[in-house]
Amino acid sequence: MAQRTHACGEVTAAHQGEQVVLKGWVQKRRDLGGLIFVDMRDRTGIIQVVFGDQAKDALEVAEKIRSEYVIEVTGKVVLRDASQINNNIKTGEIEVLAETLTIINEAKTPPFAIEDKVEVSEDLRLKYRYLDLRRPVMFDTFKMRSDVTVTIRNFLQQEGFLEVETPILTKSTPEGARDYLVPSRVHEGEFYALPQSPQLFKQLLMVSGFEKYFQIARCFRDEDLRADRQPEFTQVDIETSFMSMDEIIEMNERLIQAVMKEVKGIEVQAPFQRMSYEEAMARYGSDKPDVRFGLELIQLSDIVKDSSFKVFSGAIENGGEVKAINVKGAAYNYSRKDIDALGEFAAIYKAKGLAWLKVTEEGLNGPIAKFFEGEMADKLIERTGAEAGDLLLFGADQSTIVADALGALRLKLGKELGLIDESKFAFLWIVDWPLFEYDEEEGRYYAAHHPFTRPFDEDIELMDTNPAAVRAQAYDIVLNGYELGGGSLRIYEPELQNKMFKLLGFTEEEAHEQFGFLLEAFEYGVPPHGGLAFGLDRFVMLLAGRTNLRDTIAFPKTATASCLLTSAPSTVADAQLEELNLAVTAVKKD
Amino acid sequence: MAQRTHACGEVTAAHQGEQVVLKGWVQKRRDLGGLIFVDMRDRTGIIQVVFGDQAKDALEVAEKIRSEYVIEVTGKVVLRDASQINNNIKTGEIEVLAETLTIINEAKTPPFAIEDKVEVSEDLRLKYRYLDLRRPVMFDTFKMRSDVTVTIRNFLQQEGFLEVETPILTKSTPEGARDYLVPSRVHEGEFYALPQSPQLFKQLLMVSGFEKYFQIARCFRDEDLRADRQPEFTQVDIETSFMSMDEIIEMNERLIQAVMKEVKGIEVQAPFQRMSYEEAMARYGSDKPDVRFGLELIQLSDIVKDSSFKVFSGAIENGGEVKAINVKGAAYNYSRKDIDALGEFAAIYKAKGLAWLKVTEEGLNGPIAKFFEGEMADKLIERTGAEAGDLLLFGADQSTIVADALGALRLKLGKELGLIDESKFAFLWIVDWPLFEYDEEEGRYYAAHHPFTRPFDEDIELMDTNPAAVRAQAYDIVLNGYELGGGSLRIYEPELQNKMFKLLGFTEEEAHEQFGFLLEAFEYGVPPHGGLAFGLDRFVMLLAGRTNLRDTIAFPKTATASCLLTSAPSTVADAQLEELNLAVTAVKKD
Repeated sequence: MAQRTHACGEVTAAHQGEQVVLKGWVQKRRDLGGLIFVDMRDRTGIIQVVFGDQAKDALEVAEKIRSEYVIEVTGKVVLRDASQINNNIKTGEIEVLAETLTIINEAKTPPFAIEDKVEVSEDLRLKYRYLDLRRPVMFDTFKMRSDVTVTIRNFLQQEGFLEVETPILTKSTPEGARDYLVPSRVHEGEFYALPQSPQLFKQLLMVSGFEKYFQIARCFRDEDLRADRQPEFTQVDIETSFMSMDEIIEMNERLIQAVMKEVKGIEVQAPFQRMSYEEAMARYGSDKPDVRFGLELIQLSDIVKDSSFKVFSGAIENGGEVKAINVKGAAYNYSRKDIDALGEFAAIYKAKGLAWLKVTEEGLNGPIAKFFEGEMADKLIERTGAEAGDLLLFGADQSTIVADALGALRLKLGKELGLIDESKFAFLWIVDWPLFEYDEEEGRYYAAHHPFTRPFDEDIELMDTNPAAVRAQAYDIVLNGYELGGGSLRIYEPELQNKMFKLLGFTEEEAHEQFGFLLEAFEYGVPPHGGLAFGLDRFVMLLAGRTNLRDTIAFPKTATASCLLTSAPSTVADAQLEELNLAVTAVKKD
Repeated sequence: MAQRTHACGEVTAAHQGEQVVLKGWVQKRRDLGGLIFVDMRDRTGIIQVVFGDQAKDALEVAEKIRSEYVIEVTGKVVLRDASQINNNIKTGEIEVLAETLTIINEAKTPPFAIEDKVEVSEDLRLKYRYLDLRRPVMFDTFKMRSDVTVTIRNFLQQEGFLEVETPILTKSTPEGARDYLVPSRVHEGEFYALPQSPQLFKQLLMVSGFEKYFQIARCFRDEDLRADRQPEFTQVDIETSFMSMDEIIEMNERLIQAVMKEVKGIEVQAPFQRMSYEEAMARYGSDKPDVRFGLELIQLSDIVKDSSFKVFSGAIENGGEVKAINVKGAAYNYSRKDIDALGEFAAIYKAKGLAWLKVTEEGLNGPIAKFFEGEMADKLIERTGAEAGDLLLFGADQSTIVADALGALRLKLGKELGLIDESKFAFLWIVDWPLFEYDEEEGRYYAAHHPFTRPFDEDIELMDTNPAAVRAQAYDIVLNGYELGGGSLRIYEPELQNKMFKLLGFTEEEAHEQFGFLLEAFEYGVPPHGGLAFGLDRFVMLLAGRTNLRDTIAFPKTATASCLLTSAPSTVADAQLEELNLAVTAVKKD
């Protein structure tokens, strides 16, 4: 075989008259009888090759080739007739007059066409992933993913960070209900666990004085899967010593700016907006608000608390609240049926109904309008900024339900009404998180982030008196309504860490059993430290303008954690289990 | 806390008179009564801080600090008296007159000193790995490791390679006797396997037309461990399409040159030496020869085949051979006892004894000298280039045993006699490998590399007639006697791949069951492809001049695959096993 001289997509009019050797796949063949046009593809693009009388042997071979055959072509670059120029492809001004053609490999007809737009089930694409990945849009996504990681690595190396690999075979932790386990052959009855994150190791590296660590790390979580979750995912994991929260945030802003510049050619302004958790929940009903559009939640409890509409006043009496979103100009577009559908949507988020009012020139209108008259109506209109043609949608319930339901409605309507500038990348920090979450059912506190998160110094004394009010030195980075990542400063004082474990209900023995090595490490001089982790898969998804996380992972798993390509997981030989001293206690019912 | 202004190791005479804020660890404290000197350490180095009358409060605090306390110091940089200058450290010309001292964290006395040279067991170092990693030599190794990966990634990206992540949770393969298994919770009785390498996925990416793939990939092998093996290890994994073996080799030479230049400042000459497998075995008794020194194996079978010394003539009669190494000038240094010890060493490699001759002015000398007189002695002396004072050591056995024993003796003596230039990096390609290995016991052929390795085109027809003679288009890269990596061109024709499986004893069904998805992929137009994988851990070990692979892995496992720091593997809760439908059939006897 001859050595390739050019990539298909890179031949232009500048190469006119040159002799080329191309290698790639047959995208399409058109046989005009004595003249055959072949669109030839490699990862750089498509080029048109013409087989004709100029090389009868090649023409003869060209009659045999079919889509997806692998071929080698030698020939000469010529300009196309003006009428034949195709401005849709980079090589559209030229074509190659073939001199020789070699079939390197044949191909069966693929189960779907190798084109950006395919109308087949995702399952079929996953089963034939190697063909799915031939589609240019897929290659471009993985090219972008690779570029993103190169940019991140170069940025962090220049900042003095070391990439350090931490173990994949490690120890199961108490939060480990969702650990993947790996039986040990050497140590009977014992197991490794795959890490849910390198959290403990990155903190240990700070104890080691590495000061600036990062890793693009594979993480594992055996949880019930949703559309945007995968059993294994990739995290950009960063930890530093001696840096304040502001310094960490500022550095990560520069990191994101570098990625946006390098990969998207976009200059993102810094500092990014910062918003407290409380404000985000109040205004957007979400801890990861999409701030590319308004449609904010409006607090109305004070206005309607004495309303004769019992749904409202009752919700407030029960400790809940009443809020609304003002859907500008939607009064005439949304029929009663449409609004009922919105109510059903809100019900997914546990809203018991969706009260609404239309605003007309004559005032409020709708089944519950009668409850809001006079001053109360004026105040409602004033607070919501309502004008004729607006539609007010209400939530009246416990505040978490109001936030969830109106927050979800806001997103749905934002999309439906085209309020979102899809070309925008709106980065946002959410700060001032609560350190604890209270579990009503179990009557105990949980760590809102993880048990190593550092409280605000001035809130430490509240840990004894009012844990719910303790704020964490934690920060989430949000992009266009997605949680991109998050992090925190960590506790570095052994006493404070012990206090934290106690508050979370660990006995001293349990804390020692689970985190003994970390607590012990903390006795040997641990520096103040903190860090951040980004979800790489999701970041790439948003940068590439995709909506499916699986499109950013080369060989993803389905919602039941299966690989349709390799048929993993699968049964294994009895001998393998025997050697691991394991028995399967239930067998799959087929 | 104040913001750090300088790293400890970076303050020099150029900073004289400047105000600095330093953060780090106490390396050493010397209390001279009213004057305290503290060596303060961070990852960049050590700086001397002086506490005295200039700041009484700080002096008072300084009395409390101990080794490994984390402290913050503010002060002024001053030049040391000429008599106090320490040229052993970068900051030896200056010291810092302390103004304030804050104890950030206390520390217990560590179980060993934080110094490059520690005289403690490796087990203790591994248990307190976070302290072990504080030793500057360890930090430097991981800094180098990080620099190596950055260099590799930048080089490959510039060459048009994409880094693509392949799954860690994948399918168990037939060669999978040493797979780590991961039980599935969702699919009862089924298992994932951790990959021994991304081999199948990287070939699938070539089917996808990615053309240039790489990954710095974690791999897993549950095999009986040796000093230089780890259950998880890291591999620089490269695969390309449409490139010849020479092109792949040439590109990898440039990659290695880039690493050597960037990380060691050494210009390595290319092309690297290439040697056939046969020649390496013949001359060095090894398929990964250290070519930094001579002491080569010398073939003597033709000379001694009619010797009356039955050990020699008998070995040849039985299909074996006789070879020797000529240890120059060692006749007088090696006593009979020393030589007996060498014989015991050779016995490890199954040599049944170690025949030897000393060369004196008078001729051959030693217990077997009497068997070699006259012409045979002359020929022996001529062939081995022996001179008075030389020691000849013989191997007489099946050729693999001769190679193993003399090859090992050669290495041992090369080190003992100081024949090796330790500053040298001798890269070498081993080529022309056999495609198959014959297993005498099982009476069948095995793939010498793996079943996807491509034979030489001109040897394909030998597959039917004389498989042992078929050469593989495979190449190993060797550095200073270590196998750094290896690779091959792959089979890309479905028929040839099927033929290969048949020769390896797979039934069609078995081949389909194990590699079905790859064989199916091969029906859709697969390009010629090939690649290479380096062992990153070992490469870093050699670059850093270390001899223990564990020193290049941040959190390594012991020879029994345990982590002494986290106590992994460990038992898990019954509930976790129940959810996995698993039972442990044997319990560890404590």
